[in-house]
Order: sequence, then structure tokens, then C-alpha cells
Amino acid sequence: MAASLLNERDIAFMLYELLDAESLTRRERFSEHSRETFDAAMETAINVADKHLLPIRQKTDLIKPEYDGKDAHLIPEIKTAMQAVIDAGLASATADFDLGGMQLPSTIACALSTHLTAAGMSTMGYTTLTNANANLIEAHGTAAQIEKWVKPMRAGRFTGTMAMTEPGAGSGLADLITKAVRQDDGSYRITGNKIYISGGDHDLADNIVHLVLARVQGAPKGTKGISLFIVPKFLVTDDGTIGERNDVALAGLFHKMGGHAITSTSLSFGEKDGAVGYLVGEENMGLSYMFHMMNEARLFVGTGAAVMALAGYQYSLNYAKERPQGRLLAEKDPNSTPVNIIEHSDVKRMLLAQKAYAEGALALCLFGARLHDDEKTAPDVQQRKDAHQLLDFLTPIIKTWPSEYGLKANHYAIQVLGGAGYTNEHPVEMFYRENRLNPIHEGTTGIQSMDLLGRKVPRNQFAGYKACVSAIKKSIAEAGAVAALSEYAATLEQALETLDVTTQAVMGASQSMNIDAAFSNSVKYLDVFGHVVIAWMWLKQGLVAHKAVQQDLHESDEAFYHGKLQAMRFFFISELPEINHWAALVRNLDTTNYDMQPDWF
Amino acid sequence: MAASLLNERDIAFMLYELLDAESLTRRERFSEHSRETFDAAMETAINVADKHLLPIRQKTDLIKPEYDGKDAHLIPEIKTAMQAVIDAGLASATADFDLGGMQLPSTIACALSTHLTAAGMSTMGYTTLTNANANLIEAHGTAAQIEKWVKPMRAGRFTGTMAMTEPGAGSGLADLITKAVRQDDGSYRITGNKIYISGGDHDLADNIVHLVLARVQGAPKGTKGISLFIVPKFLVTDDGTIGERNDVALAGLFHKMGGHAITSTSLSFGEKDGAVGYLVGEENMGLSYMFHMMNEARLFVGTGAAVMALAGYQYSLNYAKERPQGRLLAEKDPNSTPVNIIEHSDVKRMLLAQKAYAEGALALCLFGARLHDDEKTAPDVQQRKDAHQLLDFLTPIIKTWPSEYGLKANHYAIQVLGGAGYTNEHPVEMFYRENRLNPIHEGTTGIQSMDLLGRKVPRNQFAGYKACVSAIKKSIAEAGAVAALSEYAATLEQALETLDVTTQAVMGASQSMNIDAAFSNSVKYLDVFGHVVIAWMWLKQGLVAHKAVQQDLHESDEAFYHGKLQAMRFFFISELPEINHWAALVRNLDTTNYDMQPDWF
Repeated sequence: MAASLLNERDIAFMLYELLDAESLTRRERFSEHSRETFDAAMETAINVADKHLLPIRQKTDLIKPEYDGKDAHLIPEIKTAMQAVIDAGLASATADFDLGGMQLPSTIACALSTHLTAAGMSTMGYTTLTNANANLIEAHGTAAQIEKWVKPMRAGRFTGTMAMTEPGAGSGLADLITKAVRQDDGSYRITGNKIYISGGDHDLADNIVHLVLARVQGAPKGTKGISLFIVPKFLVTDDGTIGERNDVALAGLFHKMGGHAITSTSLSFGEKDGAVGYLVGEENMGLSYMFHMMNEARLFVGTGAAVMALAGYQYSLNYAKERPQGRLLAEKDPNSTPVNIIEHSDVKRMLLAQKAYAEGALALCLFGARLHDDEKTAPDVQQRKDAHQLLDFLTPIIKTWPSEYGLKANHYAIQVLGGAGYTNEHPVEMFYRENRLNPIHEGTTGIQSMDLLGRKVPRNQFAGYKACVSAIKKSIAEAGAVAALSEYAATLEQALETLDVTTQAVMGASQSMNIDAAFSNSVKYLDVFGHVVIAWMWLKQGLVAHKAVQQDLHESDEAFYHGKLQAMRFFFISELPEINHWAALVRNLDTTNYDMQPDWF
Repeated sequence: MAASLLNERDIAFMLYELLDAESLTRRERFSEHSRETFDAAMETAINVADKHLLPIRQKTDLIKPEYDGKDAHLIPEIKTAMQAVIDAGLASATADFDLGGMQLPSTIACALSTHLTAAGMSTMGYTTLTNANANLIEAHGTAAQIEKWVKPMRAGRFTGTMAMTEPGAGSGLADLITKAVRQDDGSYRITGNKIYISGGDHDLADNIVHLVLARVQGAPKGTKGISLFIVPKFLVTDDGTIGERNDVALAGLFHKMGGHAITSTSLSFGEKDGAVGYLVGEENMGLSYMFHMMNEARLFVGTGAAVMALAGYQYSLNYAKERPQGRLLAEKDPNSTPVNIIEHSDVKRMLLAQKAYAEGALALCLFGARLHDDEKTAPDVQQRKDAHQLLDFLTPIIKTWPSEYGLKANHYAIQVLGGAGYTNEHPVEMFYRENRLNPIHEGTTGIQSMDLLGRKVPRNQFAGYKACVSAIKKSIAEAGAVAALSEYAATLEQALETLDVTTQAVMGASQSMNIDAAFSNSVKYLDVFGHVVIAWMWLKQGLVAHKAVQQDLHESDEAFYHGKLQAMRFFFISELPEINHWAALVRNLDTTNYDMQPDWF
């Protein structure tokens, strides 16, 4: 039963009580939708997850893709599952009706994806990447490119990838050397090697559309000389017929710790005459287009990490409710019946931590998706700009916090099961292995911390930063007016003050001292900001829950809201105070890391 | 090269500069040893690791044990490697000369094991368990049992297991139900199921000696009615000939996240007439004997976790020294050459954290092994008692801190490598998977925290606790007298004060309030104590290093000691202050976890 994978009640809480997703139906773009169509789409996602993804989840983990020296081969069930997702319209839920989409808000699409991800995160990688690829070409490509590449991707006949990383250029994209040479017919010939390309080869679709970053001959060095190309596995004629194989070869597969359903490939472009590539947009603008895709991808990474955390939480919770073991400390009679482990305080701690991390992370990701809807469809121009600014600012946190704390949640899920959690008789060890990728791909935690501190915070005279602080203050004011929550409002206000003093100190120092020293605790800064933002998400949830418990509720609903309030308390009491020490390291400009010399290690 | 697996210079530092292991040669039992014989044994361990374990490390991870419905089968290289370890005398390094051992101090044996573990942790599981099993029978068995079972184990013809866990009794051993019925010939018939038995079946040796916990018919309930039995896979006649198969069947193998060389088995005892078992010692004393083995096993778990951390540190350090990527923030020229990633402050942070965790953990484990030597061989009776008391007290910390922080170190090792670290082209993801077991087996972190808070701390009017505090104070006084270290001495004194106030608060509360509520932050208490103990280990290392840098040193030695001092600084500045918040949760008797109701989740 998919119902036991995730808590549907909680997702409905977030969508309709926390984020008022129903109000989106009043906007032009979503006017054909209603709470009923949203619920129907959710039901569809649950059914597809249940029928097509969950039954093969363990199999895709155990039977890894194979490389025969030329192509990659997967178990056929993956193609069936992918097709079911596409046929149900779930692969391009936000796309326009006339491009074959469901034209749903991103908020709803994000919620739909939680069920699919919980049942098959790595299988869903194909459709997620394909969708992001198609969105990018729609945004920056020509009408002909949309016709030729996007339509078959929307229909599930082609899949898409993003091909950025090279053996010599991972986090340091500025140094990529894949070469593009302009041809008389307007196309380009691409030569170079790309690694860690997810879905870079497989036997699931008729064609693969690689979006490749490369440098046109004579382009400037660094990030300003990078262009973006469509490089298909097979060439396609103007009438849409699939032609000969392009000069793109699979050099091998990487064997990963988790996420085995999706291939991770090493691709050689142009070993013969150069692979045929088609420029997207203008030359040397490639990185800014790719960031369009990457920002979306970062929201997806955060959401995926949150979902793995939720799935592990739900699984270990169900286990703890049914597994008898040991006695309470207060019970001294060895003849007494063992209790279910959910009764032990330390097990409660591990479950509460998972709940606080996972639901806090999901609330943030859905909040991000809501901002994405607002930036595209809010009635007012200023509202759109504001939403864009806040989402852009929050992106490194949305990507990183769920990745780091989702993994920690999965650590606890294993720990709740004990020895059983270490075996593949339960999926929690798989969640842990899969989630370990999330702090790495689409920009590591270190890279995200530099993005936040070096770019997002100071940009436009701290405009994004100030907007974020204002938004948090609004919730603090609201909660401060509620007696039962005023203590938490005051705690968050204090934390925000700590963040602000820290921000000023480190930004001031970056002007006056060596910047590598000043920013040497950037990850701690990201940790502080992340915890403040998640505390904010919990205060918002607390506001809704507090209002609800004032009313006459059904018993199970009352328990649900009490759980929300207790998880909020847990986050404020157990987690948020951690920031004081982290912030002190940043604020005091501690240079212990910076001072360490390579030969001292 | 094994030299690149671990830092030999560091191990020598710990043995001879920190723990004065050479002085052990003045004791009767070790009088035939010298620094030269210790070094020779170390060289042997490195050679065996290099020639027999390292070459098959990845293979044992990729090719898992197979179950044919009756027996378990392993790749033959494991048997060869195991035999090489035994033939070199490394499997029973501490055993008496006349039992085929090398009669080495535990301190040296522990150091030897680091090289073997780094090169093949899970293969070494067979010999580690066999050695622990043999030690137990030596301590509590009869002369005939030693002759019959221990001798072939020492020779490598038999292996040993510890069979405790049952499907219904994991952490709650009190509820185990495996049954033993006394026979007229003095033997017993054993009936029951045991799970997660490491090395419970394989084709590596002629016989397997299971040490099985079971309940003799009519024995009291709970932990006071548990007896210990030798239950061999094959019966052995009195002249040592291997006879018919005992009634012990392999019911299946567990598939674990890591540690694939060693089988994890489900065993059925007595499906036919009952398995023949031989009582060890007296009836109903089984758990206390088993704890003899478990305490040793806990020291091994801590050491294994520390070694995985060291191996990941060393690997990611070597990678960081050679991998060019990106530029320092201060460098604005895109035409400049990329730096090796070890130059980036955030990479230094992740390496320093690994160094601080791994070397701090190893220092603690070797200190524990030194206490083990003192409890057995110190010239003075009081010294022996003191050593026993301190080791007994520290055992939950020695088991847990390296397990939790070693895993965190391996997390950083992966992160230093980025995407590469997530693939099996590098061993760091394997270290991470293997290390994940350590916070679980031989008593989970939660169980250890209850052992510390509920048992070790209050026992004998806080005698062990006080002895530990005194020992730490001695180092504080020593460091306080050194100008360059007095700041760290003062910080540790403050931390010890925090620990003490916290201990008093929680112990007081356990008398006056519900004990499950009072102890509901027991893991945080263990975290606080662990951090204080590791800070102590770093202060001790800092004392040695500080003295050394005052002297005229070779350049590489100077760098080594500077590294020790910087890692000490890192631990004191970045890590130790974390305890303030954790201690506050314990001291304030926060009941957020305890108050959470099962139906609120």
C-alpha cells in the first residue's frame, strides 16, 4: 500500500492548510483546475507509484545496469514503469495542456512527485531529468527545436540529460574543455568527454537528447565562454524520422553506492568526426541557460532528499509501532510483557528527529515550489518579482538542508530498526545509500555555501537577504501574538538576530581580510541559515496546528496536530540552539581551517 | 602500498610517544619482547595486509557470499587471506606462547590490527570473532574444552562465533528463548533460532564453534537465567577427530549494506533432535561470561570504526593533494592554473574534521588497550584494579564515540571526493557502508548510553566516574603548566565542570522523577562525555606534540607535530563547544522526547 509509504494527511496539510494551494485555481493558468482535479492527480500518482514503481523498487536496486562494451541495458520493468508515469501525465505535470501537459501548479506537481519518488527515486530520475531538459529548451530554444526535441520528450519517446561534468571539471565548471566548432550549415561539431551523466545511455527510449556544455573555438576562458548544445544520440531528420547514430559513444558506466535504476555514464563526444550539436540560444550564454535548469534541478534534489527522509521516517515509525523489545526503565519485573519500541524515550527521540527533519524539509521544498508558481503566475508584477527574488535566494538552502538532514534522518531510520535496518529485508539502508548522493550532485554542500555567502547574500545590496529576513519576521509577528506560541516566536527572533550579527561580521570581514579566510566557515553559515529557515517552517506549521487544536476535532486529527506542535517544540528545543556555536565560529572569523597547512596533514 | 592506507608515523606516535608502549617490555609477561620485536610484528602485519587483504578488498565487497539452500560459500581468496593472517601469528597475537600465540601486549596487538582492518575489515571479522571466542573459553572453560576447541581455533582449523540475538530478542537479551535440556551424559540439547550470527556458516574451516546463549529448562526468567554453551557445527570425538554434523542448520544469509566478506547468518538449532551443546562454566552465568567477550568485542568495534575513519581520511587526503579543481576565492584570473583541492578552506575543514575524529578515536582505543594490559599485567595490584575500573567505565564510550564519529569522518571522505566518492572506483563509499554497522552491533548507541548513565556512572558510589574525572584532571594540570596549552587546559576544565553539573542533575532527578523521563536524553549525555574524553585524548597528544616542537626537528617531523597541534585546536574550537547545548538538554531534564505520544507521530 502506497498509503504506508508517506503520510497523505501530512501532504494535504502542507498543500491546503499551510500553503493555501487551492487559491492557485483562481489564477488564469490554473483556472481549469480545482481541489478535485488536484486530488485526482494525487490519487493517480499514488496508484502509479503503487502499481509500477514500488513493486520493482528493490529489484532495481539489486540488478544494476549492464554495459556490453557498447550500450547500457536495464531490466525491462523500468521502461514499463517510466511509460506508466508518462502515460498518466505525471512526467510533465506542469507543462502546457497543448504540449501534452496537465498544466498543474508546481506546488501540486511537487507534491505528486513525493509519492513517485518514495516508490522509486532512481527510476524517476529519467523522467525528472527529461522534464527539466524539455523545460530548458522550451525556455531558450527555437520553435523548431521545441517541435523536434521537446515534443518527443513530452511523449516519452526521447529522454533528456544534462551533460556538464568533465574528468577535469566537476565543481570547477570554468575549466571545462569540451570543444565546439561551427559548421557552414549552422550546426556545430562537438568533441570532448563528459562523466557522471545520469541517464546518459539506456535502452528505454528511441533517442536521448543531451544538453551539452562546450566551448566554441575562440571563446573567452572561464565561465563566460561556455555555450549550450543539443547533442542527440541519434540524428533526427526534419520530418522527425530517426536517422543515423551521432558521434556520441558510451565509454562506460559508473557503479554507484545507490540509485542503481538510473545509469551514471561516461560519454565520449566526437571520437570520429565530431558529434553534431545544435546551439541553444546564443553563444557564450550556456551557463546562464543551464542555471535555469539547475535551479529547477536543485529544488528537485532538495525534494528528493526530503522524500527519502519521509519514507524512512514512515517505515521506521511503522516498525517501531509493531516491534516489541525490552521494557521501560521504570519496569523492574522481568516477567512483564516487552513493550513496543515506540515506547522507549530514545526511540521517540529518533522518530521525532526524523519527523522534524523530514517534514521541515518537505515544507521548505513545497514552499519553494509555491514561490515558483508565484514567480510565474502571481497576478501582480511586484509579487512575481518578490517571489523570484526569495526563491533565488533560498535555492542553496532548499538544495542543501534537506540533503544533509534528510540523510541524518535516514541514519536514524536504520538505527530504529537496529540490525534489521542494516539488511536489505527493509528499505531503510537503500534510502540511506540513495540519499548520500544528494549533498554532492547539482553543486556540493561546499559549493552551495559559497553560492549563499559569496553571491546570494551580498547581491543587489542584500536585497534577497533582506526579503528573506522580512518574510521570517512576518511569521514571528504573527506567532508572537498567539500566547501559546510567543515563546517560540521570541526564540526565532533571537536566532534571526544571531544570524544578522553573523552576516554583518562575515560580510564586513570579506572586505578587509583575505576572503578565503573570512569565508572559511561558509558551510557553518549555511547550517545556521538553514536551521533558521527550517525553524521558520516549523513556526508556520505550528501556527496552523495551534489554530486547529482550538477547534472541535476528530480524535485522529487532534493527534495529528499535537504531533505537529511537538515536532515544532523538538526543533526549537533540540535543534535550533545548535546555531549559537556555529554562528560564533563564523562571527569570530575563526581561521583554524584556513591556517592548516597541506603538509601538516 | 600499505603505507598509504594508514599513517605509520602516527601509529608509532601513539604507541611510543603517547602511551609509552615500550615500557611494557619490562613486565614479566612481555619480557621476551622489545621495541624491535614490536616493530617486526608491525612490519609483518603490514606485509600480510598488503599481500593478502588489500588485493581482495574490493572483490569481497562485490562478490557476496552465496547460500545454496544448505551451506554458505565464499570466494576462496578469503580462506587464503585468513590462513595467511593465522600463519603469521596475527590472529592470536596476545595469546600465550605455548598456545601458539605471540604473547604481545594488547596495545601492540590493537595497533597491528589497524593495518589488517584497513585492508580488509570484514575478512578480519572471522579471525577477530574466533580469537574472542577462544579467549572466552580459555577464561571460563575447562582444560578439556580448551584442548578440544581452543587449540584448533588458534591453529585456524576451526572458527568461532557468538550466537546471542534471536528474532524476538535483540537489544532485549532478557527475553531470549533458545532452550537447553540437560542430558544424562552431562551435555545439553539446544533448540532455538539465532539471527545476525556473523561467520555462522562458511567453507573456510573444518568446523565452527558457536558460543550460544540459551535458557536451561526451569531457569529463572530474565537475564539471570541465561547459560552459555559450546555448540559446534560438527561434533568432535575425544581424540579430536571431526565426526558427524551437529543439529545446527543454516536457515539463510542476511544481505547487508556492507561487510560482505563475512556472512551474517540465520541459524536453526535443533530442528531434529536438538543440537548437542556443552555448558561453559556454570548454569545461569552465561551472560556474565558473554560480557567478558562482549567487552573485548566492544573495544574491537571502536577500533574498527576508528580504523575505517583513518583509512577514509588517508585516502581522501591523498586525493585532495593531487586533484586540481577550482581556484581560491582571492584569485580572480580565469587564466590561472587550478589549485589542488587541499588548498580550499572547506576541503581543509573536512580533512581536519576527519583527522580530529579518526586520530582522537584511535588514541582512545589504544588507550583502552593499554588499560587492558595494565589490568592484566601491571606490577601493582592497585594499579590493576584501577586500570580495570577505568576501562570498564570507558567501554561504552570506546565502543560508541568512534562508531558515531568514524562514520561522520567517512561521510566527509566521500564529500572530499565529490561525485567520485559516490562510485566504487574509490573505497570511501565502502568504508562508509561498512562503518554504518558499528553504531548498531555489540549494543546500539542507545543501549550504550543506558549502560553509561544507568550502570557505569552510579556503580560503586560513582567510583568509575570519579576515577575517570581524576585522570582527566591530571592531564589538565599538566597542560595548565605549559603556557602554550593552558588555554586548552582551561577549556577542558570548563567542559569537565559542565559534565559534572550535568551528571549531578540527571542522577539526582533519577531518584525523584520518572526514570524514563529523567534518562530520556541519555544519548546526549553519552555525546557530552564522549566529547570530553576525546578532548582529553587531544590534550594528551597536544602535550607530546608541544614538547616535541620545542626541539630541533627534521622538517617532516615538525610538520607532523604542527598537524597534531592544529587538529587539537580544531577539536577544542570547533567540536568541544557543542557539548554546551547537549548538556543543557540533559541538565534541564527536557522531556520533549518522553512526552511525545505514539499516536501523535
